[in-house]
Amino acid sequence: MKILAFETATEWCGAAYIINGECSFIVEERIPRKHGELLPLYFEKLKKESGLKLNELDGIALSIGPGSFTGLRIGLSFAKGLAFSQALPIIPVPTFKNMLHQARKLEKKGYILLHSHGDNVYYQQYETEINEIKLQGSPQAGIWSAIWPKISQQEIIHYGCKKLAPSGSKMIELHPTSKSAGLLAEMNFYKWAEKEPYFLIPEYISPFLPGTKS
Amino acid sequence: MKILAFETATEWCGAAYIINGECSFIVEERIPRKHGELLPLYFEKLKKESGLKLNELDGIALSIGPGSFTGLRIGLSFAKGLAFSQALPIIPVPTFKNMLHQARKLEKKGYILLHSHGDNVYYQQYETEINEIKLQGSPQAGIWSAIWPKISQQEIIHYGCKKLAPSGSKMIELHPTSKSAGLLAEMNFYKWAEKEPYFLIPEYISPFLPGTKS
Repeated sequence: MKILAFETATEWCGAAYIINGECSFIVEERIPRKHGELLPLYFEKLKKESGLKLNELDGIALSIGPGSFTGLRIGLSFAKGLAFSQALPIIPVPTFKNMLHQARKLEKKGYILLHSHGDNVYYQQYETEINEIKLQGSPQAGIWSAIWPKISQQEIIHYGCKKLAPSGSKMIELHPTSKSAGLLAEMNFYKWAEKEPYFLIPEYISPFLPGTKS
Repeated sequence: MKILAFETATEWCGAAYIINGECSFIVEERIPRKHGELLPLYFEKLKKESGLKLNELDGIALSIGPGSFTGLRIGLSFAKGLAFSQALPIIPVPTFKNMLHQARKLEKKGYILLHSHGDNVYYQQYETEINEIKLQGSPQAGIWSAIWPKISQQEIIHYGCKKLAPSGSKMIELHPTSKSAGLLAEMNFYKWAEKEPYFLIPEYISPFLPGTKS
């Protein structure tokens, strides 16, 4: 199976080419607020250097949320443009599954968090067993000061929350990647792929209404 | 020349197919905050019903700003996805030129305005002669109450500013359209087309910094 994967849910931006469960090429960088300009450039670079051909792909994967409001929209709109040019399915990957995919060998349980803005974070309860990722319920949005007392004794995996935690807190930081998005998309292709992704929208789970930003 | 044109700068969302200076097909509606979902659907509909083939296009046009922060990003990202799938140029069309294209036979001069949010508007001084559109300087962003006293005696063309003006004010309301974007793009193709639109970004001209919205 051949999957093109993008990552735009955080300050990290990436494009990866997955062939039969292996990442054959990846371009990925931390580039705050430059996703709209650089994601197409990464795609061009990947295409040129890996020999990827759109008409040979099985689908396009990306983290669908939670995450940056603007980043998710840019990633999904670019993916839709490519997908609709070739009638390709889009495979939406929950951002927290993407992050936990990188921690899947750790056998941990606790909370996974992603910084939103100011004191706002997204969070969800997780458990990883050997090559299995479990998430409880749905991701939630909340204020750090309200969440921290309940979770500070748990095993925490996060991105961008270090600045909110007391110094010396033991937390594992990792960011969602296009590689994990692509690998998970291939594994879950028949469950997750949207063959006609007209109405696919990012999963915002935002404490503010998305519509309030015009 | 064959141009696919999109419009996402305001609450209106559209896709048009321009062939040799004529609009052969258009799908356009006022759909506040639904651009991310509906633009790809409009494109599919247009493709199916008009017989448009991406590999026969000369380029993809769209209003580049000023306008809705989110709308512009969605439109440009979708256009980039399609463009990069076929190595097509993108033709960015100034939103005010798009609006004035529809008023080009009126022979007027005054101010053109576009509502941003709250009391904030974008504005620019314009003059239309027979089939000619002139804009003075660059579009600006400002507060309605500061701008209105200076322009209330002028001939005003606007979108979305009626609610800010005293009732009974004489103003012409019209919205940017995908048809005008496409027609202007064809006319100005050799001046405006970006053959490698990697770094093309929307023209925000926003009183707030774009980067402050994550």
